[in-house]
Amino acid sequence: MSESRWDRLLLNATLATFGGDAPYGLIEHGAIALHHGRIAWLGRMDALPDAPAALAVAVESLDGALVTPGLIDCHTHLVFGGDRAHEFDMRLNGTSYEEIARAGGGIVASVNATRAASEEQLFAQSLPRAQALRADGVTTLEIKSGYGLDLDSERRMLRVARRIGRELGISVRTSFLGLHALPPEYRDRRDAYVSLVCDSLLPALAAEGLVDAVDAFCEGIGFSREETRRVFERAKLLGLPVKLHAEQLSDLGGAALVAEYGGLSADHLEHLGEDGIRAMAAAGTVAVLLPGAFYALRETKHPPIDLLRQHGVPMAIATDCNPGTSPLLSLRLAAGMACTLFRLTPQEALRGVTVNAARALGLHDRDTLAPGQRADLVIWNVKQPAALCYWIGGALVRAVLVGGESVA
Amino acid sequence: MSESRWDRLLLNATLATFGGDAPYGLIEHGAIALHHGRIAWLGRMDALPDAPAALAVAVESLDGALVTPGLIDCHTHLVFGGDRAHEFDMRLNGTSYEEIARAGGGIVASVNATRAASEEQLFAQSLPRAQALRADGVTTLEIKSGYGLDLDSERRMLRVARRIGRELGISVRTSFLGLHALPPEYRDRRDAYVSLVCDSLLPALAAEGLVDAVDAFCEGIGFSREETRRVFERAKLLGLPVKLHAEQLSDLGGAALVAEYGGLSADHLEHLGEDGIRAMAAAGTVAVLLPGAFYALRETKHPPIDLLRQHGVPMAIATDCNPGTSPLLSLRLAAGMACTLFRLTPQEALRGVTVNAARALGLHDRDTLAPGQRADLVIWNVKQPAALCYWIGGALVRAVLVGGESVA
Ligand SMILES: [Zn+2]
Ligand SMILES: [Zn+2]
Repeated sequence: MSESRWDRLLLNATLATFGGDAPYGLIEHGAIALHHGRIAWLGRMDALPDAPAALAVAVESLDGALVTPGLIDCHTHLVFGGDRAHEFDMRLNGTSYEEIARAGGGIVASVNATRAASEEQLFAQSLPRAQALRADGVTTLEIKSGYGLDLDSERRMLRVARRIGRELGISVRTSFLGLHALPPEYRDRRDAYVSLVCDSLLPALAAEGLVDAVDAFCEGIGFSREETRRVFERAKLLGLPVKLHAEQLSDLGGAALVAEYGGLSADHLEHLGEDGIRAMAAAGTVAVLLPGAFYALRETKHPPIDLLRQHGVPMAIATDCNPGTSPLLSLRLAAGMACTLFRLTPQEALRGVTVNAARALGLHDRDTLAPGQRADLVIWNVKQPAALCYWIGGALVRAVLVGGESVA
Repeated sequence: MSESRWDRLLLNATLATFGGDAPYGLIEHGAIALHHGRIAWLGRMDALPDAPAALAVAVESLDGALVTPGLIDCHTHLVFGGDRAHEFDMRLNGTSYEEIARAGGGIVASVNATRAASEEQLFAQSLPRAQALRADGVTTLEIKSGYGLDLDSERRMLRVARRIGRELGISVRTSFLGLHALPPEYRDRRDAYVSLVCDSLLPALAAEGLVDAVDAFCEGIGFSREETRRVFERAKLLGLPVKLHAEQLSDLGGAALVAEYGGLSADHLEHLGEDGIRAMAAAGTVAVLLPGAFYALRETKHPPIDLLRQHGVPMAIATDCNPGTSPLLSLRLAAGMACTLFRLTPQEALRGVTVNAARALGLHDRDTLAPGQRADLVIWNVKQPAALCYWIGGALVRAVLVGGESVA
């Protein structure tokens, strides 16, 4: 046996590479070779030598099954304590948001439950959510802090996020979201809290290697542009990339702000105007669409899809998995919702959970199926890419590979 | 070992019985005993004798996990050839329904693919859909014919439906839906096709024991009230219960018609008026709501939930799993959609996939958790019933039991 043989060769695959000019970058009757955790070769079956069995240590035929890059969920809040199913029940039984908030519900409930949970408890509660995403094809996962809102609790969230990555053998990218909500103990001291986040929490957690990017919730019910700018300035000093929850409920100009800082992404964007789009296009900032929150909140105003297309802003799709506004545990379903609710084409939606989601995380080693890219891929029980958006629910995953190894 | 010991005893369960007056019929700190495929006993843990380990052959603790009746999907079209993912893609790329229909798409595509499939092929293509539903908690499943539209093809669909039930160890109830669409070869001979269905197909298939109920699609683009009445008359002669696709796109008075025949259910109902509701209430006909089709078609007119409540019409929820208007493979997600889109309470939605779905199928041996009922139940990875509607996607099922035996 020669050392130069590939580790693994998948034959008779339908490859949705998302590279090249064909729709989905599709290669039918394809083969893909994996070696040392990377894609070593891919192409049409008829470009392989006659005796493929000799080319790799492990050779298998997929009988036409679809292979895509591993899916990338670039916006989640999946580490949190408790859940808010009881609030969901109360609201549908007629209790108003205000009454729930007065009773200690809403985000404060998640903050309290997260603060009360030990690291072990937080890990045990959060892991199944990441497992569900992985079982549905996710191999790279962004996880935000933001339910701790003090140093120890934010640290615990980010440590749990890292541990989830190790436990599941997937890539986890963390975002520090100190400016998510004003914690109860700072209710009358906004400025002191913003200072705490910028001058204390962020530098400390960054120094511990727990922060891959910095995020904020720029909204009337969140933080202002100027408050957001303060944390972005600090991120810049620390050399950390920024992203932003922007224009979800109103247009505060958050997209332009994050673009000004060369940000990775602006997320939500239902109320985004053309100025913000121009700024994003110029800066290369990705538009991350979150149809799960749109669905759960029964919003009616769509993000400006046509304008984003016209200006060539790349669109990503994410679950926004969180206990309040998007308890969504399937990225594939988010892609389907982007088609059904936002009228993206299946190709746009699937680029949104692969190529463009990678870009939204600043990752360039896993965006398409191509030689040299990480061998993070999903083998599906369907043969055409659009089927991934068409079926609502169901178990379409045959296998999930990370660095060439099966993890699910 | 005494013969009188129970087969299986589940301890420390949260039982959503859907009986009694408590919300969800909830029994916390509960226990449930299964024997010879039936529920032998259930109640609070503290009503058990001191040594529960001696009471049953197998005893296990659920640590508070939720137990519900097995879910019942009372309206599906899940046996069909091919899929329509390609049409979904075309539509989102701007092709109109009319263009797709002219190109041989729409329901005709499913009829052609179903007719072209052998029984083996139809079984192989349909089984994974039923597996997906079962994996998400479904233990009783209705499956309709209606993509064959000739004797051999309708028979093949119904035989496959029965075989799916045997293969998966779940209960399958079949509905004959000859009046689903006018087959191409009868395009100019509506009346001849209705006669074929009433005088030939239905009696033949009923004689083979393949038909548990008779359904029709009463709609402007389907069949008229008078055509529907003809097949209902034949069903009555044969002693078969009826149900109806009614008031989905317009109010043709289908609900009142099916109520006139003492029908099991009227299904869809977005355009149902108060006369139809009164007729259903008087006849005990169940309202089957299909939020998956509402979602996929982006309908805006809701079924008249408040009026259904006021008149005491029981509401069931189903997937409507079909290749055109509801490619939905999760009944739990349908229940969640009923909450989010139709504003049902989680209790109403969950009664809709248990008690009221059983009633919509004329089944009385599996509607609640109660002594003597079939031991069809689901053990979940959550502790409160509302969580089943709150989480969108994810793998919440710990175990599915049919007749006391684990099937998934
Ligand atoms: Zn978010
Ligand atoms: Zn139907």
